[in-house]
Amino acid sequence: MKKTPQKTKRLSKTISLLTDFGATDAYVGMLKGVIKSISPDSDIVDLCHCVAFHDIKAAAFQLRISYAYFPQGTVHCVVVDPGVGSSRSSIVIRMDGYYFVGPDNGVFTYLYGVAEKKEIRYIENKKFFLKTPSTTFHGRDVFAPVSAYLSSANIFCRLGPECIEPVTFNLAPLERTQTRISGAVIYIDTFGNLITNIPVAWVSSRKIYTVKIKNHRIHGFSRSYGSVPIGSLLAVKGSSGFVEIACHQRSAQKYLNAEYGQPLTISMQ
Amino acid sequence: MKKTPQKTKRLSKTISLLTDFGATDAYVGMLKGVIKSISPDSDIVDLCHCVAFHDIKAAAFQLRISYAYFPQGTVHCVVVDPGVGSSRSSIVIRMDGYYFVGPDNGVFTYLYGVAEKKEIRYIENKKFFLKTPSTTFHGRDVFAPVSAYLSSANIFCRLGPECIEPVTFNLAPLERTQTRISGAVIYIDTFGNLITNIPVAWVSSRKIYTVKIKNHRIHGFSRSYGSVPIGSLLAVKGSSGFVEIACHQRSAQKYLNAEYGQPLTISMQ
Amino acid sequence: MKKTPQKTKRLSKTISLLTDFGATDAYVGMLKGVIKSISPDSDIVDLCHCVAFHDIKAAAFQLRISYAYFPQGTVHCVVVDPGVGSSRSSIVIRMDGYYFVGPDNGVFTYLYGVAEKKEIRYIENKKFFLKTPSTTFHGRDVFAPVSAYLSSANIFCRLGPECIEPVTFNLAPLERTQTRISGAVIYIDTFGNLITNIPVAWVSSRKIYTVKIKNHRIHGFSRSYGSVPIGSLLAVKGSSGFVEIACHQRSAQKYLNAEYGQPLTISMQ
Repeated sequence: MKKTPQKTKRLSKTISLLTDFGATDAYVGMLKGVIKSISPDSDIVDLCHCVAFHDIKAAAFQLRISYAYFPQGTVHCVVVDPGVGSSRSSIVIRMDGYYFVGPDNGVFTYLYGVAEKKEIRYIENKKFFLKTPSTTFHGRDVFAPVSAYLSSANIFCRLGPECIEPVTFNLAPLERTQTRISGAVIYIDTFGNLITNIPVAWVSSRKIYTVKIKNHRIHGFSRSYGSVPIGSLLAVKGSSGFVEIACHQRSAQKYLNAEYGQPLTISMQ
Repeated sequence: MKKTPQKTKRLSKTISLLTDFGATDAYVGMLKGVIKSISPDSDIVDLCHCVAFHDIKAAAFQLRISYAYFPQGTVHCVVVDPGVGSSRSSIVIRMDGYYFVGPDNGVFTYLYGVAEKKEIRYIENKKFFLKTPSTTFHGRDVFAPVSAYLSSANIFCRLGPECIEPVTFNLAPLERTQTRISGAVIYIDTFGNLITNIPVAWVSSRKIYTVKIKNHRIHGFSRSYGSVPIGSLLAVKGSSGFVEIACHQRSAQKYLNAEYGQPLTISMQ
Repeated sequence: MKKTPQKTKRLSKTISLLTDFGATDAYVGMLKGVIKSISPDSDIVDLCHCVAFHDIKAAAFQLRISYAYFPQGTVHCVVVDPGVGSSRSSIVIRMDGYYFVGPDNGVFTYLYGVAEKKEIRYIENKKFFLKTPSTTFHGRDVFAPVSAYLSSANIFCRLGPECIEPVTFNLAPLERTQTRISGAVIYIDTFGNLITNIPVAWVSSRKIYTVKIKNHRIHGFSRSYGSVPIGSLLAVKGSSGFVEIACHQRSAQKYLNAEYGQPLTISMQ
């Protein structure tokens, strides 16, 4: 552990931002101003700012399927933070060659299962905050400056003590037997595609499957959305790495009137 | 033609992104992560991500009126791609000092009339794709990496064979006689301005014109939106280079209940 | 005053953009293309593009609470411009180590009270515009190029003559006596938080306060949104530096059916 921040070979200048701040205020802009003030040569990339308001699970999923497409060394700064100003802690994670900064409210839940090796620390060292941080906007006053410092110097271990048991939310049910997989919808995208927690790796190309969701049965997996007639339901091995239920040029969410947590099963013959 | 990618004098580090992915998912963020991983010093600029879902003609128009404002050497990456995973091809265009990357579904239609000299190639060389590309997200797995490589090295000719006849959509009718121009609305912007396919160059400042659209007649062209009372209809020589029908501080689209393709005529006296 | 633009030590490459262009067109993208063409190494940061259409007061507030979080030397380019093409002037302000570029329509009103020392000039020198600027899109043709030149060279004094009396809008009423503060809501954010014109510095931590807004009384200031039950109204010393009325995990705007200008009082005991 270094006593002072030292410039190390910087793997990436990229800092990604994932928030539920929406597009109508200047709050995201302020985060960027703070980052540019501390680390002028950082590359700020918007991951998404229109996560549904306070939807920790949606943000967790977006982060899970996106983070590894960024350059090694990227700092992913996540601000979906309904408990700001309460007793919830702030954490930083070093994992898989990436840093993750945000509130300890479960938003990193899906990451914990991915890599065996990870280090988690509380963010407590006020040296890396804005002076006199507010109690209602830690995105600007804590997470943005910590991300900027983390991107430009080796300060990980100086941020605070180790965190042994970070907060997580309960994962949706997921089980498999020899002939049957049971899972659930865990994300619905803007196109109305229903993304499940069933890894595509569990679905072999050599078997015949029937997907059952609500009262609908889908026979087999389609190669792409366009493989069925417009308006028809289909199952695909989704680009996110999870099984996806879609509707060609329509919304599967509306077609099925489905919500987060909707169960589904896949039977093998 | 070079055998290996070579660093040439790079005209611009700018890569623009034009998609219909909307703002609520992390899909655009993933594209940027992929680009930054391949070409860390690229400058990614959002052209627009809220093109109406699957609206190839709207994207084509936005690209047409925007591309030339970017630095020479910019790579414009367009992902409005309803046919992803089907048999539609992917193409790259070199024209006017710019590169254009995207699906061969007509989204480049408006460009073809602009420059006499252009080179078009199919994108087939998997060396420049992400490994094991998905069948449902070519934006991330094909167009983003190809754009990143194209921005940083001279690989145009290595992407694939020449494309002689790219896909186009039918242009809206446009005619002129000595006394009369007939055209159509080909884009409606967020302010409700109706943008037509009639070039402003066809409208001289020395003549008197009457614009007829639906049952309305507009006499003469206004200098700016504010030249008529609030709520009044007007015609302007639009900043996009095309004749525009607007309504001062209101929406001309709502005023006229107009849609894409709405015909209009301009008579000269 | 220099005769020719000279490269001086550049404090920042950051140019922020604040517009009401929304997300569905390529207009913001064009501004960025223009800036990158003139100043390729500039760092363009979106402050906000979804200011309510033509809402000069909302843009003025967003700018006021954001600008100082950016690096010294940042050029803040503001294009909320209902009067484009009319006789309204364009201005540039040098203040507090920042530049501000935009229409002289009041959008800088809240800045004028902040710093004692400021220089304001009209933007008239067409050398720094795009060639043949349109009458309907000064954002692209005037404000973007001027911002790009200003960010890369010392041209402030060459832009035009001094502006002695810039346009301002009337400030909402704000008064205080020994026992009572009267103010008004001057901004409503996307979460429905009501942000007032009452500086948090006027509210001591040692006194007991009652906030009265519409028929509601709020006793004391909360530390954060989560300090009261979900759905309850609260007052906080907002992160923007102004007193804020909020509703825990709900919209205070909807709760109170409040609008811009809504008066409120704070009584001290």
